[in-house]
Amino acid sequence: MRRLIVGVDIGGTNVVVGILPEDGSSIHGVNAEPTKLTAGPDGALAQINRMVRKSLQETTEELGSGSFEVIGVGIGAPGPLDRSSGTVIVSPNLGWSNTPLRDLISEAVELPATLENDANCAIYGEWWRGAAKGGRVVVGLTIGTGVGGGIVIDGEIFHGASDAAGEIGHASIDTTGRRCKCGNYGCLEAYAAGPAIAARAIEGIEAGARTKLLDYVDGDLTGVTAKIIAQAAIDGDHYCLDVIRETAHLLGSAVANLVNIFNPDIVVICGGVTKTGEHLLEPLRIQVVRRAFEPSVAACRIVPGALPGTAGVYGAVAAFLAQKAKAV
Amino acid sequence: MRRLIVGVDIGGTNVVVGILPEDGSSIHGVNAEPTKLTAGPDGALAQINRMVRKSLQETTEELGSGSFEVIGVGIGAPGPLDRSSGTVIVSPNLGWSNTPLRDLISEAVELPATLENDANCAIYGEWWRGAAKGGRVVVGLTIGTGVGGGIVIDGEIFHGASDAAGEIGHASIDTTGRRCKCGNYGCLEAYAAGPAIAARAIEGIEAGARTKLLDYVDGDLTGVTAKIIAQAAIDGDHYCLDVIRETAHLLGSAVANLVNIFNPDIVVICGGVTKTGEHLLEPLRIQVVRRAFEPSVAACRIVPGALPGTAGVYGAVAAFLAQKAKAV
Repeated sequence: MRRLIVGVDIGGTNVVVGILPEDGSSIHGVNAEPTKLTAGPDGALAQINRMVRKSLQETTEELGSGSFEVIGVGIGAPGPLDRSSGTVIVSPNLGWSNTPLRDLISEAVELPATLENDANCAIYGEWWRGAAKGGRVVVGLTIGTGVGGGIVIDGEIFHGASDAAGEIGHASIDTTGRRCKCGNYGCLEAYAAGPAIAARAIEGIEAGARTKLLDYVDGDLTGVTAKIIAQAAIDGDHYCLDVIRETAHLLGSAVANLVNIFNPDIVVICGGVTKTGEHLLEPLRIQVVRRAFEPSVAACRIVPGALPGTAGVYGAVAAFLAQKAKAV
Repeated sequence: MRRLIVGVDIGGTNVVVGILPEDGSSIHGVNAEPTKLTAGPDGALAQINRMVRKSLQETTEELGSGSFEVIGVGIGAPGPLDRSSGTVIVSPNLGWSNTPLRDLISEAVELPATLENDANCAIYGEWWRGAAKGGRVVVGLTIGTGVGGGIVIDGEIFHGASDAAGEIGHASIDTTGRRCKCGNYGCLEAYAAGPAIAARAIEGIEAGARTKLLDYVDGDLTGVTAKIIAQAAIDGDHYCLDVIRETAHLLGSAVANLVNIFNPDIVVICGGVTKTGEHLLEPLRIQVVRRAFEPSVAACRIVPGALPGTAGVYGAVAAFLAQKAKAV
């Protein structure tokens, strides 16, 4: 009988659920829904419970009942958290504060559960079954509503002294730069997160830049998102290509720092903006070559994520297996 | 019979040699000399050989012959290096290029030897027997001719994928900032290394700053060094205190990044500039509190090094023991 694990990736924008076997060789019953932010902690919990049961049902329909057993749920959630107690310390977007999320979900879905940071999950997923497979020292960025980071060393998520390591999006690339929501100045997130890319693009348009971007949003600047900018860039809009190139320069500067600090063999960049492909990656790599030490650059591949939308689910499952293996 | 190990710390400015027992509980025969840069690789090798023999003789005189055996030499050297072959890949200051330094020294002093990066040694020494003792995730900076870095996780130096990790001094804190010798822009080293501190101080004086600093150098600005600035600050010179405070702000910004990335339990700051004590550390810590995530700040102590002048020797010996333990 195959042993399956449910992965739950709770983001500020979407909740994604999927079910994987222990070897991560396939994924079943994938469901994604916008996160129910307004419904409060109970609403989010009800949503997760419903989504998990839906995924389990779809998996049963696909694989046939009796062919597998489900041994647990790996949860990825944003914000600082305490793994040993399974508590989310604080997550402003989700309205959680000292919430024992692991046990709440475990009780709701009637399965053992583990909790891990969502960005750690995304990078761990890419290490386990994605673009960073085989990496010994993997550093990753996941670009979305924020810029998350994860560090995987010798096949284990690096957690630091109190489970808070990996906040690479909140390493400043300009000590006197743009104010970040976190309180710091010049954080990578303040330039390269989706909303920050949109904000930079809008600033340029307000200053008179010529672009077809407005056609994509019916002339309404407030409708501009990083996703739309990426699409306009792919469609050949010169201004949007330049915004992507500037994003690549800023990301490249941050990645160069990571290359000098960690000497990684793989840096993986995840998130929708990587859909722009070489428009982003080529200038990013050029910055890294210009800025980082040659021996470290030579040792490092910089790759886009290979599991768009589900990296966090893969990683949540891998983290479940890793935490359970350590507990035994 | 006690087993002793020789530690050799080869810096761009000084070579320091000392001899320690396996438990690092004492240090003997400490010798420091300016590095003979002009004499080329052979000259430096002859100098190291002579210094090691002098330290051995002094240790014999102190402890009595027959009371100990010397089992090896741990070497700390600057620049990218390959530990497995014991080769310094390149060290511009010392004129070395693909130099098999480990075996050259081993043959000269007739003892087994290991090679490790000098900044890694300094931080490892602080972890083993200094201010970072007991730390599980230790990140350190060593401020001298350059700004070196070292990372110690669970009692082991973190080397990255190809022995080049830890170049924290070459993480940029301002992507469009001061050009660094390494080719990057805005590296911490370009602001906080000894020569960079002196350069910033001189720029202010040239712009009209009032200071007694000139009295310390007989009116000759070219004689200004970070050491003299630190002394003038300790003596109460307001301008030099401000230069130290600015240095603390820049260092604090970089340390905040490290706190967010690594979630360390100890950050250790080594080097002569720490002689200014709380003049440096208080504003540095304030920056970290302002900039880094609260849970990570709460988990972290920021301390000055406790082994001035010999941290690299302690760490070279600890690295010898660690490499030999792994080889067995």
